[in-house]
Parts: sequence; C-alpha cells; structure tokens
Amino acid sequence: MSYNSFGQLFRFTTWGESHGPAIGAVVDGCPPGLALAEGDIQPWLDKRRPGTSRFTTQRQEPDQVRILSGVHEGRTTGTPISLMIENVDQRSKDYSEVSRAYRPGHADYAYDAKYGHRDPRGGGRSSARETASRVAAGAVARAVIPEVQVRAYLVELGGIAIDYSRFDDAEIDRNPFFCPDAVVAAQWETVLDAARKAGSSLGAIVECTATGVPAGWGSPLYQKLDSQLTAACMGINAVKGVEIGDGFGAARLRGEDNADRMRPGADSPQFLSNHSGGTAGGISTGQPIVVRMALKPTSSILTPVETITSDGQATDIVTKGRHDPCVGIRAAPVMEAMVALVLADAKLMHRGQTGR
Amino acid sequence: MSYNSFGQLFRFTTWGESHGPAIGAVVDGCPPGLALAEGDIQPWLDKRRPGTSRFTTQRQEPDQVRILSGVHEGRTTGTPISLMIENVDQRSKDYSEVSRAYRPGHADYAYDAKYGHRDPRGGGRSSARETASRVAAGAVARAVIPEVQVRAYLVELGGIAIDYSRFDDAEIDRNPFFCPDAVVAAQWETVLDAARKAGSSLGAIVECTATGVPAGWGSPLYQKLDSQLTAACMGINAVKGVEIGDGFGAARLRGEDNADRMRPGADSPQFLSNHSGGTAGGISTGQPIVVRMALKPTSSILTPVETITSDGQATDIVTKGRHDPCVGIRAAPVMEAMVALVLADAKLMHRGQTGR
Amino acid sequence: MSYNSFGQLFRFTTWGESHGPAIGAVVDGCPPGLALAEGDIQPWLDKRRPGTSRFTTQRQEPDQVRILSGVHEGRTTGTPISLMIENVDQRSKDYSEVSRAYRPGHADYAYDAKYGHRDPRGGGRSSARETASRVAAGAVARAVIPEVQVRAYLVELGGIAIDYSRFDDAEIDRNPFFCPDAVVAAQWETVLDAARKAGSSLGAIVECTATGVPAGWGSPLYQKLDSQLTAACMGINAVKGVEIGDGFGAARLRGEDNADRMRPGADSPQFLSNHSGGTAGGISTGQPIVVRMALKPTSSILTPVETITSDGQATDIVTKGRHDPCVGIRAAPVMEAMVALVLADAKLMHRGQTGR
Amino acid sequence: MSYNSFGQLFRFTTWGESHGPAIGAVVDGCPPGLALAEGDIQPWLDKRRPGTSRFTTQRQEPDQVRILSGVHEGRTTGTPISLMIENVDQRSKDYSEVSRAYRPGHADYAYDAKYGHRDPRGGGRSSARETASRVAAGAVARAVIPEVQVRAYLVELGGIAIDYSRFDDAEIDRNPFFCPDAVVAAQWETVLDAARKAGSSLGAIVECTATGVPAGWGSPLYQKLDSQLTAACMGINAVKGVEIGDGFGAARLRGEDNADRMRPGADSPQFLSNHSGGTAGGISTGQPIVVRMALKPTSSILTPVETITSDGQATDIVTKGRHDPCVGIRAAPVMEAMVALVLADAKLMHRGQTGR
Repeated sequence: MSYNSFGQLFRFTTWGESHGPAIGAVVDGCPPGLALAEGDIQPWLDKRRPGTSRFTTQRQEPDQVRILSGVHEGRTTGTPISLMIENVDQRSKDYSEVSRAYRPGHADYAYDAKYGHRDPRGGGRSSARETASRVAAGAVARAVIPEVQVRAYLVELGGIAIDYSRFDDAEIDRNPFFCPDAVVAAQWETVLDAARKAGSSLGAIVECTATGVPAGWGSPLYQKLDSQLTAACMGINAVKGVEIGDGFGAARLRGEDNADRMRPGADSPQFLSNHSGGTAGGISTGQPIVVRMALKPTSSILTPVETITSDGQATDIVTKGRHDPCVGIRAAPVMEAMVALVLADAKLMHRGQTGR
Repeated sequence: MSYNSFGQLFRFTTWGESHGPAIGAVVDGCPPGLALAEGDIQPWLDKRRPGTSRFTTQRQEPDQVRILSGVHEGRTTGTPISLMIENVDQRSKDYSEVSRAYRPGHADYAYDAKYGHRDPRGGGRSSARETASRVAAGAVARAVIPEVQVRAYLVELGGIAIDYSRFDDAEIDRNPFFCPDAVVAAQWETVLDAARKAGSSLGAIVECTATGVPAGWGSPLYQKLDSQLTAACMGINAVKGVEIGDGFGAARLRGEDNADRMRPGADSPQFLSNHSGGTAGGISTGQPIVVRMALKPTSSILTPVETITSDGQATDIVTKGRHDPCVGIRAAPVMEAMVALVLADAKLMHRGQTGR
Repeated sequence: MSYNSFGQLFRFTTWGESHGPAIGAVVDGCPPGLALAEGDIQPWLDKRRPGTSRFTTQRQEPDQVRILSGVHEGRTTGTPISLMIENVDQRSKDYSEVSRAYRPGHADYAYDAKYGHRDPRGGGRSSARETASRVAAGAVARAVIPEVQVRAYLVELGGIAIDYSRFDDAEIDRNPFFCPDAVVAAQWETVLDAARKAGSSLGAIVECTATGVPAGWGSPLYQKLDSQLTAACMGINAVKGVEIGDGFGAARLRGEDNADRMRPGADSPQFLSNHSGGTAGGISTGQPIVVRMALKPTSSILTPVETITSDGQATDIVTKGRHDPCVGIRAAPVMEAMVALVLADAKLMHRGQTGR
Repeated sequence: MSYNSFGQLFRFTTWGESHGPAIGAVVDGCPPGLALAEGDIQPWLDKRRPGTSRFTTQRQEPDQVRILSGVHEGRTTGTPISLMIENVDQRSKDYSEVSRAYRPGHADYAYDAKYGHRDPRGGGRSSARETASRVAAGAVARAVIPEVQVRAYLVELGGIAIDYSRFDDAEIDRNPFFCPDAVVAAQWETVLDAARKAGSSLGAIVECTATGVPAGWGSPLYQKLDSQLTAACMGINAVKGVEIGDGFGAARLRGEDNADRMRPGADSPQFLSNHSGGTAGGISTGQPIVVRMALKPTSSILTPVETITSDGQATDIVTKGRHDPCVGIRAAPVMEAMVALVLADAKLMHRGQTGR
C-alpha cells in the first residue's frame, strides 16, 4: 500500500507523478508565526534542479514552487502549507519501452507485483522527480529549526573518496558535485564523463552534518533520532545503506577507542571526539549530527541488460531517456531536506514533553 | 519524549526497566486463529539469554515468558497479546558509579539532557535487557508470517570477516557467536577472549536473511520496506549503520554490474543476482531480503576513560558490572525479531490494500 | 497544533483557506485499479455547492475539482490522489469586522488563544468552505466501497422534526433541504425564510444511513466503528452532538425493549429491529448503520451580540457577509462524505487482518 | 482488526480479558518527574470497583493495581508505565450459555463475524472489566494535568432526569449512583431495584465537566478536542450518543440564543453563557468543558429474548451471571478517565507547537 506521509507532529505528505501536471507537498503541524515565502523555498529547489550541468538529467524543469495555503502576509498561520510545483517538461513518449519490459534495478517489477498494473506513470511516482516535493517541504522544516544548520555533500563517487584533510566548506557550491575537496572534484569529473559516454553510471556516498542541535531530541525506544534519520535517508531513491557517526567503521574499533570522552565545558560538556555522530541512546548529545548514505549507480543505463517482458519473455533492455549518470549528486539537497524534516519533528516532539 | 510502540497494523509496545520487577511487550493487531503458546516463544528467548557462554554477560536471567492475554486454548484470539518476563537477577548495586558520572558511549548524558533526572534505572530502559521483550514479540510475528524464514548471524567481529565460501548454515548454532564460518569462529574466540581479559570490547556486523517473502510487500514512499527494516535495526542498541543488499558496496559498482538481470522463471522471474537485497522502490521483489547492521564495541569497559560527573567535574570512569564484551553476539536474535516484526506488519498492510 | 489528516489505511489530508487561491485534499492509501474520474467527484460537490437556493450562502463558487495525481487512464494507480478546487469568489473585504472583534460562537477567540495571531484568514481554515475538500475525498472513498450506499438527509430543522411514516427517499433531492418528508419540507421553508429575514439562524439534525456494510468492520477497542463515525461527524463545523442507532433515546429504554432480537435468516441472521444502529462492540453487524448529528444554529447572524475586541474592549458585533441561515443543510453531503471515508478505511483495515 | 491504543503524545494501550489471569495498561509518553504512586491510582479504581452496592455486579474484584515500570522513587521517569491488575474472581463457568447462542445487544455476533471464532473469552475483551485498565491509565493522565478538575456524574437514569437547580457537588459521592441530586437519587433507587428484580435493566446519561482547561487545546481540523472527546466516550461500552455543551438541544436554539456572549474579564474574557460546552472550532475556550454520553440499558438480562445459535438455529436466551442492572453507574469513573486521558494528550500536543 502506498504511504506518503512522514512525521508525527511536523508532518508532510507528497503527491504527484513524474509525468502528471504537477507535484506537491502538504506540510502540516508547522507552528504559526514563522517567516516563510516562496523565496525561502526556491533556492533549495534550484540546488536540486535538473539540467544545471552535464552530470544531471537534461530534463528542463523550472521547478517554480507556489504556496497555496498556510501562509498569510509572509508568516505561517499554523494551518497546512500546500506547496505545488508544475511539471513542464514531461515527455512521456521517452518511456514507451518501459511499458513493455522490466528495467533491472528499477521498481518496475515490484510495483507490478504490488499494484497489479503496468502503468509506467505509476513508476513515475518512484521517479527522482518526486524528491522536489521533499526539498520544498524541507525548506519549511528549516524555518522551524533556525538554530540548526544542515549541510550535505558528496564524500565518494565512483569509488573515489575525498580526503578529509582538504575539506573546504566553501568548495561545496563551486563544483557540480557538492564536493568539498577540489582535487577530488576534478577526478570525479573525469570518471563521470567517461561513465556517461560509455552509457554506464556510478554510485556515490553523501554525508550530511547538522550542527546546532541541542542535547535531548529524539524519542527512544522506537522513534530514536537515529532510526528516524536513517529511515528518512533510506527512503531516498537508490539509497542502499545509511550510517551515523563512524557507522560501519565503528564495528572495527575497540571500546576504548570508540568512546567519546568528555571534559567539563563552558555551557555544556566538551566531547573530545564524535565517533557517535551526535546521538546516544537515540537522543541528540549536542554534538554535530553526522549521517552518511550510500547510493547505488543509476539503474537507467544505455548498456543493454537481460530482463523479461511483462508477459514473461526474455529480452534485453536499454534505458534511453534523460538520466543522471550519478543520482548521488542531486541526492545531496534531498538528504538535507530529509534531515531537516526529521529534526523539525524531533524538536516539536521534545517540546511536547518538556515545554522546552 | 519516550515512544515505545512500533508498527502500523501489527504493532507492539514494550515496557520495563532493567532493574524493575519485570519487562514485557503488548502485541496488538495480531490476526486471530494462529497457533501460539509460551513454548513457541521461549526458544527464541533462550537464544538471546545472557550467561550462556563466557562471551555474554554473567547476569543470570531465566527469561521465562508468560502470556497474560490474547491467546485461548493455544490460538490467538485477535485481541492484544500481553507478554511478561520477570527480572530475577537485578543487582542494582552494581550500578552505583553510574549515578555519579556519565559513561562515554552510553546514553547517560543524553537521557539526562532529555529527561532532566539522574536515575540510573531510567538508563535501565536503554539497557540491552529491554531487547528480550522484542524477541518475545518477534516470536509472535513469526506466527503471522509462516511462509518466511528469518535468520541472523555474525559476519564480522573485531574486524575479522567470515569467508562466504565457507558459509555453513548448520554451523551457526554450533558456536557461541552465531557464526556460519567455523574457521573464523575459532579466531573470534581468541580475539574476544583477549579483549575481554584486557577490559576492552569489540564491535561486530550482523547479517539477516529473510527468505520466502513474496513480491509486493512494502508501502512506498514513506514506509518503504527498506526504511522500515532500517529503522527497526537502527533502533537496536549500539547499532550505528544498516545496509540492504550490497549496501555501501553498491556505491562502488557501475550500473551494469549492479543490475539484477532477469530471466523467465517457472512461477516468478528468475533473478541472476541479488545486489538489491530483495527490495526495489521500497517493495519486496520476491528475492531473499538481506540486511546487515554494524554494532559499535560495548561501551561498558574496564579501561578507564575520561568523563565528567553530573555536576560537571572531570573524572575517569571504569564501568564494572556484568557486560558482554561484544554486544553484537546477542544482537543477532534481536535483529531476527525486528525483521520478523517489520515483515509481519508489511504483510498485513499489503493485505489491507489487495486482500492478497 | 493543527492536524489535518484522517484515517489509518485509507487516509486523507485537506488544505486551504476560505480566501486563498485554492483548497484541496490528498487521498492516500487508495487501492489501485478503481475507476475514477473528475466526473465521479463533481456531482457530490455540486450537491454541497453554495448558492443553489436562497437557503444557502450566496457566495458563487463553481467548485470545479481537478485530479492532479494518482489516476491514469480513468483508473486509480495506488499512489496519492491530489484533488484541487480553485477559490473563485473570495471577497475578503466582507470580513474586515472579524479582524477587530471576536464573533461569539465562532472559533475566533479560540484560534487566537491557540495560534496567537489575529488573521481572519486563519479563521478561513475553520470556514465551511473547507468541507468541499472532504466531499471530494469522500467521492474517492465511495469508489473503495461500491457495496455500500451512503445517504444523508435532514430529520429536524428549527425544532420541527420529520414524520418517519412519511419518509420518502425520492423526496430528498426534490427540495432544497435534503428532507425526506414533503410536508415538513414546506414548513421548514416557512420558518427558515422567517429566520433569515429576521437576521437569525436555525439549527438542524442530520441523519445518515449506510446500507450494505457487511458484518465485521471496525477495530475494537480504540478504533471502534462507532468511535470513528462519531469523531468524523463531530469534526464537522457546528456539530455539537452525535448518536448511533437509538442514541440518547436508548437511555430511556429497558433492556428487553432495546434488544435487537435475532431469527435465522437466509445468508445472515435476520434482526427484528435495529436499535443498535448497525454496530455492536464497535463492529458492524450487517444491519444498516444509522448515525445522527445535531448542528447548532449558524453563528454568523445579523442580530447584534455582545462581545469583546481583540484588545479586550466591550463591543457589539453583527456578522455581515454571505452566510447559510442553517448550516445543517449543506452539512448533509459533508456527513455522507465523512461516513464514506470512515467506512472505506474500516474496510481496508478489516482486510488487513483477514484478507476478506 | 483489534486496535487497543489511544492518544498521540500521551498514549495508552490496554490488554487483558475478563477471565484471563490479569488485565493492564501501558501508558507511554508521560513526562518525567511527576509524583505518582499506586496510592494515586487505587482510589479511582475503588470508585469503579464492582460489588460496592446491590446496583453493580456482585463479582468480587479487589482491583489492586501494581506499577511495574516507569516510576522510580515516587516519580515518573518518562519511560512507559506498565500497570497491572490481577483478576481474582473470574468464574468462567457462568458463561457457558454464551458459547452456544448470540446474546442480542452484545458483541457476540459481530465478534464472531469479525474474528471467525466462538470464544466467549474473546467476548471477555469487550467486557466492562476492561474499563478498569482505562481508569488506572486515567489516574496517570490526571498527574499530567494538575490544573484540570474532571468530574463525572449521572444526570438521568431510566428516563428520570436530575433537577439541575438541586445540583449538589457534595452529594455525588453520597449515593451509589454518582447522582448530584439527592431527591432524584432516591427515585433512581426505587426504579432500579424494581428493574433488577424484574430481570430487566435501565439506561442512563452521564455528564462530565472539566474545569481549569486553558484556552487553546485541541488540534483542528481532524483532531479537534470535540472529536477526541467524542471518540473517547463513544468507545466506552454501551454508549450510543455523545454531546458537547447544549448538544442536541443546540439544534433547537436560534443563533442569537445560542451565542456565548463575551464581556471583558480580568485575565481572560468573561463568557455570559456556555452553550458551546467549552470548545469552539475544536479548540478549548477556557470555559468548563461539558460532555454528556448516553448509555443503553444493560444487554445482559434475565428476561428471555429471541436469538439464534452460532449454527443458525432459533432459540431464546437468558443471560445469567452477575451483571450491573444499569451500566451507566460504573461508567462515570470510566468517563472521567477517558476525558482526563484526552486532555493530557491535548495538553502535550499543544505544548509541542508552542512550548506553552
């Protein structure tokens, strides 16, 4: 069954297919009185917009967001905020092949098994296009947590990782990869160009850091902040792994090396390391929250792969159309949005308990 | 705020502290008419039970489960199933030090920040002991999905990974590590003994496979099967990373190598590989579901680490008491339970849509 | 906090203010493959549309619904169905007085206390206009429960009750009151005309019958069908009371008179009466479901009433503008929609358990 | 499907059958630091306890509550509070007849249709005994809302209403009927004795007043305070109608008579009447909240009524056993509990938005 809402107190619901007239989100539970205008949302959509470099799909979408409700004279009213983005460039003829055969790596077969129909536009709901709605909703979430800065960037592409010693925050917006390491950004350009020309695709790892989160957010045991963050990220298309702090690397440390030792600090304790990635027992510790997610290579490739038709015949498929050679790139703004959405909800939940 | 329920149609709520009189779970939404007795639950609890080898805590808990409601003459009635496990060996004096200083890597500081009190028994809620309730609830979930086999085992401990070519299902229950590779199990014994004697601890990676899940389970976009599985596993104590199928490894593959090619099969398509780990677009594909989770090393160690007291003074802490030198071991039965609980819910949700 | 979603498996979320550009609903969880077009929704909106007689507000709204997602080639796809209705006649100048003083009987003061702002358009969310979104969503619900017929009609207006012995189903659509008793409809016309001319307003009681609901729907104990139905109706503007079956009248019966005696029937038991209104223990019995709700008289009246301004000064207020002299009339199609929405959800929930 | 949880931030789940070993509730989301002991819960259970007069069932249950978790040294810890009440006097042999034929007015047939089994103990879940769990949970809710006083009492029994001019708060606990009118209490004694001796039963109307609720609680549009209160009361056994403020009576007033006029007050506005029962637009207004619910006469009566057996044969049934001749009496403490539970949740929800 389709389930398109997320969050407990700060909630959003998205709707819309890749090839319908529009997509959108309804954000509910937003506190009243927050400054919010279309101009606060648009820049985040622009970051995620297709067609801004040769490394993203050439689909041309202006992605202009409209606020249809919930805001009056530049302030939220506490009522649901309806956000709509019209689809402009929805050439559905590109997808004729899809209605005939299942694309490996895509949800075609699974959707068919679940929903019992062969509508390629139903697949349109699983398109990366839907993530524009999340980015728009995420911009509202940012208004709820002005004390928090959320920042996502790629740390690996095609198996080439950044060197953290060269990490430069200012570099992230200077290249088409949201890469904080200028040296590695150049290498990614080369390998991704090669992959694209070869009709292939590459995977990536995206990291997101949220600073300014106070200690205490998160609802153990079954809405731990870690669970909420990882569920949110795992729900992004093509994501196959998520980790917090040292993540899988922590499994190779000894107890004394993994401990985030504490010393007295000014207002709050000083932690000597952040192996935990800013959470303990499912609750924020006040340290920066660090989440990483791994994306598989784009499944839509020009290299022919074996598959079957919907009536069970063997065939080969080549997925033409306009596709990102690495979906990880445009996933960075989406990850930021999802992390912001989780944190906005966690903040309101925490308030529900304590009034703080 | 504390949130202790999980699931939509098949739900469970756990309660109880490590050092209170009892712990338990209420399982709601279970269909009527399923065969269920205490004897169906106890074996799973016995697998997770402490004190069965020198590699787990020496706390002695019989972990006898009682069914207090929801079952009549050996069949579920469709009403809530209340499960209770009495705590027998709750020597709380062991924990006196905890009430004085924050243990790095534990939730002490975060709980204090959230709940505003220094009750070491509140920390008792974040104890691994709570997971016995999950294992009991998971046994009920298994009754809902008899078509599915769920199996968890360790694939890495202290940085030493198994060799999949030696994978032997029968071996898993022959060693104290739920290790499917007899050669590596022997190595783990050595390194874990050494770590234990050194007052240190080790991390681990646990894998869980669920076979028999039909294609079609999962509720995109925000209750994708992947997200639900990830949230469930990430909610287990000490887990810092979760991946599905090739997970982080998929980020290093090219599109054509990551594609799970399909050929015509007898009843359902034949997949030539399972990089995806049994899901696509958040929906099961009919292939085995493969989830892996990484656990950090046990935070309770005898090696002194720097910390602060609850009134902000610098100190060192040594966590005495009875602790598992590698919490990953006893996490295997818990992971099985959580995966079973997610799948039971996904099955009922799918039925809600289709009647299938 | 604002909370604008309803339902568990079949869910909807509404958005939009009375004086914004549009209002709408997102319906999620709808099974795929159902026939649905704008033409299936429009007739229900037309029934509720303002300005169709002198007994409803003279605001002119065409209430044309657009389906923006979730339907492909006339069939639902299983993805969220976004419904939008543009506001055409939103003369907000009519409401200038409202921004100055609290209208007794309206939510002005309560909204102010909750949201801390004096935006009359925030009050626009509590306008009867929002119910158009519910009616649109209700039309989708009807597609989910084709076996059920839902029918609402007024049984009392201004204290004048119908005579059930004259109940004529065909009469309901022949008068502007959804009144099944032609004799009483004529009386209502007289008293309502008089009230309207006097600048006053009248209350009403609306009854809704759902036939064709099989035995077994409803989720005791805390999502009993009765609770869901009454919560849904109590959420309609101006409703102050709800009852099932004999309702308050049952409190005056003796046990033997209130018993719905049973005799053997062909396929299912034959009940000799329906005091219970089609539910028992929170579960449908297979008999017609009968719900009644009481609406207070319209609060917007031309008769001056004492009130205070938002800065606490005493004043009198007269609510000009275009208002229904009896909001109960247009509440009938809304009640039908809410009952249909509850039943669609209950049907899917029941399926989730049993596959039936 | 069975659904046994209620609430959003302040939640509870009940479990247990009438004839099992115990019943109980798990209360989750309770803020930490509140004073709570078994002695705070027991008095409310004692009010509802059976066997305290000849007008309630003669089943003897001490209803001793145990707190199994969530409280440490007399204070809530913020973790789930598990409450258990052992069943002592569960003579199940009394119910042999029930397993043979459906009792009209009971849930027997509906449960059978839903759950597909003929377990009279499943019916035990729909027993009034379950309400003890609610009363225990309600006592926890009271600790969350110390500013609110919740009080329920009978205003009508067997068709005989109290005279509000004789309303005496102190009288409520002096008679076995929770009746605030001593004159009418004497009349009720006579009619109820007669009904009981005749093997019949009577219905009742119970009113509940909550004072001290500040303006602003409630979450429009779909978790309006009115809807939540209504759903909570309608979920109590035998309730067939619920109204707020003037309720059904409001349908017979004119707009100017129904308006709750306002005058300037000291801290908050002074209302000149309370037709609305303390809510407007689904939000509390600061006035007392007034809810009334109607209960049908007890369905278990000694008068034979026509019914069918589970295999479809015509028969007559007499429901022996120990039953309340008027279930409305013991429903008063249950109503208080449910109202307190709704208000505790509404308070936390409101805080989630505003921090107030």
